[in-house]
Amino acid sequence: MPEKNCKLSMNDIVSLCKRRGFIFQSADIYGGLQGLYDYGPLGVELKNNLRDAWWKSMVYERDDVEGLDSSLIGHPLIFKHSGHEDTFSDPMVDCRDCKCRMRGDHLLDGKCDNCGSKNLTEPRQFNLMFKANFGPLEDDASFVYLRPETAQGIFINFKNVLDSTSRKLPFGIAQTGKSFRNEVTPRNFIFRVREFEQMELEFFVEPGTDEEWHEKWVQYRLEWWKEQGLAADKLKLFHQPHEELAHYAKATVDILYEFPHGFEELEGVANRTDFDLGSHSKNQDELNIFAKVSANHDSNAKLVVQNLEGKNFFVPYVIEPSAGLDRGVLAVLSDGFNREILENGSERIVLKLKPHLAPFKAAVVPLAKNNERIVEKSKEIAKKLSRLRLGRVKYEDIGNVGKAYRRHDEVGTPLCITVDFDTFEGAEESVTLRERDSMEQKRIPIREVEKFFQEFYAAGRVGNSIW
Amino acid sequence: MPEKNCKLSMNDIVSLCKRRGFIFQSADIYGGLQGLYDYGPLGVELKNNLRDAWWKSMVYERDDVEGLDSSLIGHPLIFKHSGHEDTFSDPMVDCRDCKCRMRGDHLLDGKCDNCGSKNLTEPRQFNLMFKANFGPLEDDASFVYLRPETAQGIFINFKNVLDSTSRKLPFGIAQTGKSFRNEVTPRNFIFRVREFEQMELEFFVEPGTDEEWHEKWVQYRLEWWKEQGLAADKLKLFHQPHEELAHYAKATVDILYEFPHGFEELEGVANRTDFDLGSHSKNQDELNIFAKVSANHDSNAKLVVQNLEGKNFFVPYVIEPSAGLDRGVLAVLSDGFNREILENGSERIVLKLKPHLAPFKAAVVPLAKNNERIVEKSKEIAKKLSRLRLGRVKYEDIGNVGKAYRRHDEVGTPLCITVDFDTFEGAEESVTLRERDSMEQKRIPIREVEKFFQEFYAAGRVGNSIW
Repeated sequence: MPEKNCKLSMNDIVSLCKRRGFIFQSADIYGGLQGLYDYGPLGVELKNNLRDAWWKSMVYERDDVEGLDSSLIGHPLIFKHSGHEDTFSDPMVDCRDCKCRMRGDHLLDGKCDNCGSKNLTEPRQFNLMFKANFGPLEDDASFVYLRPETAQGIFINFKNVLDSTSRKLPFGIAQTGKSFRNEVTPRNFIFRVREFEQMELEFFVEPGTDEEWHEKWVQYRLEWWKEQGLAADKLKLFHQPHEELAHYAKATVDILYEFPHGFEELEGVANRTDFDLGSHSKNQDELNIFAKVSANHDSNAKLVVQNLEGKNFFVPYVIEPSAGLDRGVLAVLSDGFNREILENGSERIVLKLKPHLAPFKAAVVPLAKNNERIVEKSKEIAKKLSRLRLGRVKYEDIGNVGKAYRRHDEVGTPLCITVDFDTFEGAEESVTLRERDSMEQKRIPIREVEKFFQEFYAAGRVGNSIW
Repeated sequence: MPEKNCKLSMNDIVSLCKRRGFIFQSADIYGGLQGLYDYGPLGVELKNNLRDAWWKSMVYERDDVEGLDSSLIGHPLIFKHSGHEDTFSDPMVDCRDCKCRMRGDHLLDGKCDNCGSKNLTEPRQFNLMFKANFGPLEDDASFVYLRPETAQGIFINFKNVLDSTSRKLPFGIAQTGKSFRNEVTPRNFIFRVREFEQMELEFFVEPGTDEEWHEKWVQYRLEWWKEQGLAADKLKLFHQPHEELAHYAKATVDILYEFPHGFEELEGVANRTDFDLGSHSKNQDELNIFAKVSANHDSNAKLVVQNLEGKNFFVPYVIEPSAGLDRGVLAVLSDGFNREILENGSERIVLKLKPHLAPFKAAVVPLAKNNERIVEKSKEIAKKLSRLRLGRVKYEDIGNVGKAYRRHDEVGTPLCITVDFDTFEGAEESVTLRERDSMEQKRIPIREVEKFFQEFYAAGRVGNSIW
């Protein structure tokens, strides 16, 4: 047992996530697939809550952002013209001794990760996009890519969004959704995986205002991660050196978080200039090679806007805050999990999630499971709170009250509501409310529980407890 | 112009969906990919709202359902043992004259859909699953399937969920997410597509209670669709004849909706018996062929539960209500879009969505766009309501008030809030509220707007207006 409060190790997090239903290795009954994970009953709530918080802050609260949800399957021409077909690859080497395959740029001292041999092949470029067959024809020409980023779905819909919303610069298009990268060596739990979810905003601005907007978005995004509960001293900015920039970027600032395996990228904020819209516009000229393309695909399909005077057309610049949702989940979990030594010397694991992220919004606990009146009243309260549809409310009848509290500390439930013998004493019925972090308890009348709960979880509140 | 109120045709719906930013053909700037669609700024809100309504009714309101979110990429053994590798296919024929390829079971009079020729090949079975490469090896053995249904992700996680939640039968596991089917002939807009989203519940019960639960779930689901606003006379049940049942089903009842192209399946409620859990359990014995499989994969991995007396193990039966989210969107759109002749003889298109589904929760309209006081007050109200994070609130300054109302009728905005010259007259500031369906207007003090709005959209309310 540790002598003082501490964070959990990655191993502890992985094991707790499986045991309590946050995250499972995908297809584990068939031996698992590397780099794929499934979110269990609690994980899906946490992930949905984090995604919702992003969407609300991007699309609902701002008045300059539109939403989008484009297909995961992408036309090959999208990724030809975006540059991904040519440049989205990692160096890969083979070990001639143990036949292992690995990334060439992550090797320690140029030795095989697996057997330590130095007998390695020269690195070759390995494209990270997944290819799938498409349509009923079985020739090699009928293939598609699984998108490696959601961003391209935004770029190719730029004109559709502009036409349907009459937006003027600056404005953004936000999207969340799955992306796929055939990583050579997936690792660090849900940090580097082959199927993952992104939260991306493409914010279109006039050229010349891009650097100012870039700075603003770095700050907005850093603040947002703090609002999700991440400790300020575990977040830092990293300005990518010129030689490490992606093929589309003029400048990129990464928001790094100190994961259990070290400081790594949680979100990248890139200045993608007019690279993507420009590429997709330029290449409209090639489209006459496709039978289906006709009068719709003239110069009007160019992804441009008019300047304020309505004279010249130009291609907007774009600032892209691109966050990993799974990495976000891993960050709030590793930040939130604490092993605490209590005053009486005993230990508890507590997941200090902001209330808006918590998988269970409350647990209702009957003090005596064999007392019909207590049980009925507990179920009644749980049902009432469930019907508010603000999140999951758990009627918790496993173990005694102390165990129920520990159980819910461990999964981040902010409130426990206990029905006991005192409930039915006094002038009116009452319950004990117990707060997760402080472990403080207070007694309130049952008629006030619903109102208290609603205010605690008011939609506009990002984790500011009214406790 | 029609002489009386009527619904829109499919063509009108498709065109309106593009023009107003609900749904776009995917990759249209590259000629499009058949059977793929992107959801625009309004479509993404509608789709998210419908999915949320399902999740809330399944996971938040019920106390016998857990949630899950499993990977889209599936281990080949999952779909071998589920039966999909062998049986999930459609008959396909080629036209020897025009070289067209089409489904063999949808031909009119045995003639080619394209050229009318009868010179067709014999039907052959065409598997509907997409295959993709996986991992850094380039041999044919390293492939995965894109899941054709979310259900298998639930079955293979049955034990993980059971172990982490201590559930007893009956209980369900709910999941929403993308699935993929390489349809030979996608058609009817977003009805039959190659990438789509499902909302699936696998509800596990004791054998012998399955028929009763099947009936219950058919009724629950039918009621739910009515709550989403679908007209009762456009919904009907269809009991699949024995010879049409899927390979896993003992009985299936389809919930059909009268789409513009006719009555078709919106949701299927199947009794899948113990087919899937049984298959995945049985085939655990094969797992010793995989190097990574060790002691974890003994008989404990069998997907079974103990009976009440804690003696015998058995495989539960499962009832599966499986709904199409895109089909749901198409249903609420085709049900909601109305062309109405107004009293003055003019026409309007109005999208009668239940408030909880509406993409914009309110539009705030300044009566005079050149009056600074009116503009500022309108922006202030829009900002205040946006901050409640209950959905999108639009500050609408395009066109005059009449046009703004028509514009928002067409996209289903339940409330318009107008700031006019009277706003600043009288004892306290006030606005005009205008309701979409009745077009009724009423005046309320500005200080009451926020409360009115919150109550109108209270999280627990499914479209019951307080107007």
